[in-house]
Amino acid sequence: MDEKEISQAVISRLPRYYRYLGELKFEGVERISSQELSELMKVTASQIRQDFNNFGGFGQQGYGYNVEYLYQEIGKILGLDKKHNLIIIGAGNLGQALANYMNFERRGFIIRGLFDCNSRLHGTIIRDIEVQPMEKIKDFVKENDIDIAVLTIPKASAVDVAEQLVQYGIRAIWNFAHVDLNVPEGIQVENVHLSDSLMRLSYNINRYDSELAKKNSAENA
Amino acid sequence: MDEKEISQAVISRLPRYYRYLGELKFEGVERISSQELSELMKVTASQIRQDFNNFGGFGQQGYGYNVEYLYQEIGKILGLDKKHNLIIIGAGNLGQALANYMNFERRGFIIRGLFDCNSRLHGTIIRDIEVQPMEKIKDFVKENDIDIAVLTIPKASAVDVAEQLVQYGIRAIWNFAHVDLNVPEGIQVENVHLSDSLMRLSYNINRYDSELAKKNSAENA
Repeated sequence: MDEKEISQAVISRLPRYYRYLGELKFEGVERISSQELSELMKVTASQIRQDFNNFGGFGQQGYGYNVEYLYQEIGKILGLDKKHNLIIIGAGNLGQALANYMNFERRGFIIRGLFDCNSRLHGTIIRDIEVQPMEKIKDFVKENDIDIAVLTIPKASAVDVAEQLVQYGIRAIWNFAHVDLNVPEGIQVENVHLSDSLMRLSYNINRYDSELAKKNSAENA
Repeated sequence: MDEKEISQAVISRLPRYYRYLGELKFEGVERISSQELSELMKVTASQIRQDFNNFGGFGQQGYGYNVEYLYQEIGKILGLDKKHNLIIIGAGNLGQALANYMNFERRGFIIRGLFDCNSRLHGTIIRDIEVQPMEKIKDFVKENDIDIAVLTIPKASAVDVAEQLVQYGIRAIWNFAHVDLNVPEGIQVENVHLSDSLMRLSYNINRYDSELAKKNSAENA
């Protein structure tokens, strides 16, 4: 199989499969058919089969998929069988929330360092990790084999900081700053633009209202 | 124009247009061609024109779009010309981070209340808002015309709390809990599944590595 062919749409659905399979596994379910998985996840069975066929189909038998095997295989595809060392740049509320979130660690994302430009935060301890000044990032990245940087800083400084991180050898950026980053090829970026998400919610409320209004005025006409 | 025809893919691109147009406006740019916007946003000009045609095209002239007009119109489509009253359920680090984020307020999303089941947090003041116990949600929603609830609570309680919120009259949920919610038709949900996002990043690192390895082994063969 040639992974180059796999669309980002398929990729973006994989974590959801992984999440549901993890829960099935936790509940002790051993096998599941694409039909049952389809009902649980509210996607069509044909979508599930198509998605899985991108990875060779995961050997579905007449009586369904082996949950444990499927969970492990999707985990491998997602790179969750490897450990990643993370630093968080920006130790405000959001940075602290992410540092405190144990689930990431369970999946192999280990938070090694916290950095902030605000000197009042330096020395603060969050889950055994001390907040350090920005000047320490460079050496820390090299000495601790850091591959992922989490950016929870304002957009004004995010572009410059991202550029420096790439120079220091960071391979991937999980970007919460409300700005698109320009990075060289080979550096992976995943954006979490919270305002964009909130605006999509607002759009859907608005659209529902205007459709309802149209419907009502058609009924009263 | 019939808004029913507009795909979620187009919708999910609108906030990004809005963001770029806001910056152009801030920089004093008055007009921009689809070609210039295309270079700035790194999407094709034809994609931009197609997206905008869903909304009547926004009257592009030979010399481009009027930035202010386009910004206002996309804002209206996103429902940003209306105010929304929000409550945050879960006043931990993430809830506090969201409460402190001024940008939401600028866009018309006003945070009115904060709730948590942890009694040690009750009475804590975050940006003039006092954290209240969960039992207060019901009356608060009715008395303060709340339409959006932000869920920053663990997944174990999120499904039940969401169900209650819907009964109390909430119209939309911005869901940070790591679980998919079942809500009746007409209730809007926007999920921010942070672990899913981190797994996509991990996938992309992993894929890049394996492609590089393949390329290197082909070169050395």
